[in-house]
Amino acid sequence: MIAHRAELLTQEQVQQVHEASLEILESVGVLARNREGRDLFARHGCHVDGETQIVRFPRAIVGQYLATCPPTFTYHGRDPRYDRTLPDDGPLVANSSSAPDILDPETGQVRRARSEDIARIAYLVNELPGYDILALPVTAEDAPPGQFSISRFYPALKNCLKPVRGSAPSLEEAKAILRMCEQMAGSEAAFWERPFVAFQYCATVSPLTMDVESTEKLLRYTEWGVPSFGAIVPNAGLTSPLTLLGTLAQCTAEFLAETVLVQMVRAGTPRVFDALPTAADMRTVAYAPGAIETGILTMGCAQMARYYQVPCAAFVGSTNAKLNDAQSGYETGMSTVAAMLGGVDLLAMGGLLDAMMTFDYAKLVIDGEIGLMLKRITRGLEFSEENMALGVLSDVGPGGTFVETRHTLKRARTETFLPTVADRQMRHQWQSGGALDSEARALQHVRDILRRDNPAVFSPDVDAKIRAQFENLVPGDARL
Amino acid sequence: MIAHRAELLTQEQVQQVHEASLEILESVGVLARNREGRDLFARHGCHVDGETQIVRFPRAIVGQYLATCPPTFTYHGRDPRYDRTLPDDGPLVANSSSAPDILDPETGQVRRARSEDIARIAYLVNELPGYDILALPVTAEDAPPGQFSISRFYPALKNCLKPVRGSAPSLEEAKAILRMCEQMAGSEAAFWERPFVAFQYCATVSPLTMDVESTEKLLRYTEWGVPSFGAIVPNAGLTSPLTLLGTLAQCTAEFLAETVLVQMVRAGTPRVFDALPTAADMRTVAYAPGAIETGILTMGCAQMARYYQVPCAAFVGSTNAKLNDAQSGYETGMSTVAAMLGGVDLLAMGGLLDAMMTFDYAKLVIDGEIGLMLKRITRGLEFSEENMALGVLSDVGPGGTFVETRHTLKRARTETFLPTVADRQMRHQWQSGGALDSEARALQHVRDILRRDNPAVFSPDVDAKIRAQFENLVPGDARL
Repeated sequence: MIAHRAELLTQEQVQQVHEASLEILESVGVLARNREGRDLFARHGCHVDGETQIVRFPRAIVGQYLATCPPTFTYHGRDPRYDRTLPDDGPLVANSSSAPDILDPETGQVRRARSEDIARIAYLVNELPGYDILALPVTAEDAPPGQFSISRFYPALKNCLKPVRGSAPSLEEAKAILRMCEQMAGSEAAFWERPFVAFQYCATVSPLTMDVESTEKLLRYTEWGVPSFGAIVPNAGLTSPLTLLGTLAQCTAEFLAETVLVQMVRAGTPRVFDALPTAADMRTVAYAPGAIETGILTMGCAQMARYYQVPCAAFVGSTNAKLNDAQSGYETGMSTVAAMLGGVDLLAMGGLLDAMMTFDYAKLVIDGEIGLMLKRITRGLEFSEENMALGVLSDVGPGGTFVETRHTLKRARTETFLPTVADRQMRHQWQSGGALDSEARALQHVRDILRRDNPAVFSPDVDAKIRAQFENLVPGDARL
Repeated sequence: MIAHRAELLTQEQVQQVHEASLEILESVGVLARNREGRDLFARHGCHVDGETQIVRFPRAIVGQYLATCPPTFTYHGRDPRYDRTLPDDGPLVANSSSAPDILDPETGQVRRARSEDIARIAYLVNELPGYDILALPVTAEDAPPGQFSISRFYPALKNCLKPVRGSAPSLEEAKAILRMCEQMAGSEAAFWERPFVAFQYCATVSPLTMDVESTEKLLRYTEWGVPSFGAIVPNAGLTSPLTLLGTLAQCTAEFLAETVLVQMVRAGTPRVFDALPTAADMRTVAYAPGAIETGILTMGCAQMARYYQVPCAAFVGSTNAKLNDAQSGYETGMSTVAAMLGGVDLLAMGGLLDAMMTFDYAKLVIDGEIGLMLKRITRGLEFSEENMALGVLSDVGPGGTFVETRHTLKRARTETFLPTVADRQMRHQWQSGGALDSEARALQHVRDILRRDNPAVFSPDVDAKIRAQFENLVPGDARL
């Protein structure tokens, strides 16, 4: 257990960031391009300028709608054993999402990602204990026309019993996905009792702009009652001020604006403060999600989320490295520990290289171990009289050894995290085993899993029903 | 600034760990093999069993001698600009120390380390802004008989103006080093006014045993008034209980026992809670300093150090990886962020692979960048009205861009950490630059530095005086 989170701001400073975000919403306002959104804002007390499409938020309105946010958010899995509620079951770990490219696990070359990659990654996430949630990891170049989203959600849901989250480019496709899920669940009612997909949207384009289509998704998903969440993605120096504090204030204002709209549509809809705030490298304006500033900003978001009593999710563990080298390792390790100790409840963090452009199977496995290390940190020092171990220390005495005590043997497999991929051999053993780096060892683990049949897949019956409804559906087979 | 450190224990639990460590010292006691040490303990109120050599500590005695510890510890550099005081100037970063082997920067092969490696690493640490302190990084196979320590301290001090710390195998060698330092300083008085070396000893062999020779070092270093510190290195499952909490309690008892002895010799001698607590991998009893448990235990030590109001130092960022791969990166990144956010004041963390057996020049450079990332975290969100940036946000407005504002241009080189080695290029740029991994890029940086003359070296005059006094002295040249 962590007795006290790491906090970059004092409580008074948190309140001042809150004040600054209210000031932004009241004075600068939000550009709301979606007419239905603007009408909703106007009808519920915001000031809308019809010409500029700028919505300004009286402070009382923000407070009123913030108050109807529940403190928790639940992700359902196809199998209820994998249901997870934030923050109670946290910290949770999801893989990273939506890369267009992938490192082919057999050729080692970068190529466009396909639906079978999604199937395989879904199976891996199902098997890897570090992950709680499957995010749609990559796009699918082989998707038949009109089936882009189905070609991503079908292989994911087919191969994974854990909660699945992702985005759909259009509401039509979102509806098709929900229809498919109803088939999987056995009935419409069964699905909506425990909806085992969650939809992401990006209703805000920083700075302070709510787009037409994504706002429509926000409205419909909220009306339908499907779990959904909007990611806020300011980039300091380009789409937010080049100070981490100013970016946090803007990010908070954007979160509040979306929250108000969601609560206006349906009061009590669960919300997550879900953000990917970054700072650009101003030498080249390169996108730098692997920079330590991502971790710092995320710690700030976690403090704001706690202030608002909503769960916090973050996209961390990103790297700008092109291959899974030391940079990839430390960039992933550092921002995720910062986020976890800062109190982020859900970390989307597994598998991506190259500023989120390229998925790597081996990195997915490695990041799963990092996820387990993060969870070991949150177990902490496990305070209890038994764990204080004065008895065994007294028995062993000065100069003795603990190796063969009952106390030690009893805890040999549980006290510490015991990795599968990380190497702890002596150098000569490691050399005679082929001197493999962690990428190579992780790829072996990938192959070990993907050469077995996946017990998580649907029954042929269910599969046949789904395939009957969606012509040309991709195979969704995870075997390598 | 970090408003609140991450804490794994509540304040009440910290007190209970303190109580447990007092209980250990009172009931179990410490095996003190050094007669002079035992006599000192006995003379100042401890209960000494002459037959078993066990020393037991009345609680009041521990409290009495703990009270004379000052709250700070100062490292001096050969150049006073590099003087650093803990915790005021912290967090500080030192490189890691004492590996017998090194990855040759030209052949890429592992070989025994030599004195010229120390010279080169000293020059690198002098140049790399991430490091505050040079720890003697490796042993020196080429040391002439009787000059093992001189062959390590001379090339280190010759090539680095920052504080230098290390250990000497014997008191005779420690004296020779101090004599050499007096030459460097120009006079005995000049050196002792600002002693620019610090000596490490390991007076405690866990569990709870104070050795003959290292206790003698503790006694003499304290009498002489040379900055010195004892590292506590319990290994859960072997030399301490296989619970992290029990290991922390034992570690704390060991720190207190040493502290009491130091204060008995000379009240007011600065102390650092300096520890490397680890947990063994009980599947093979492998030494696993790269395990996340090192970071967790270190966070616990930092809490105990704050409770005692003494600075905390830790040996973190270690890895079990044999080469600088993703595992090396995340193991280094994770434990160092945990330690930093947990409040460790000095992190010894740079350059070691293979469970501290092998030094890697490239990793030294990479870990220097990690050090700068850690320091960027501690800058935090830099709360101020100006940094809240409401003015520029209002000017830019919803949908605008910050890239060319005065506000952004003014901060382009200072707001974020801008790495030298980490890659942030587009994939095609990276490929046309040779598709180098971070190890290869860091090695380029190593060569860039080591092919220049080192302006930090002594004048030929001083060097001649030193060489006249120590026959057969190694060259200590850093050029590659």
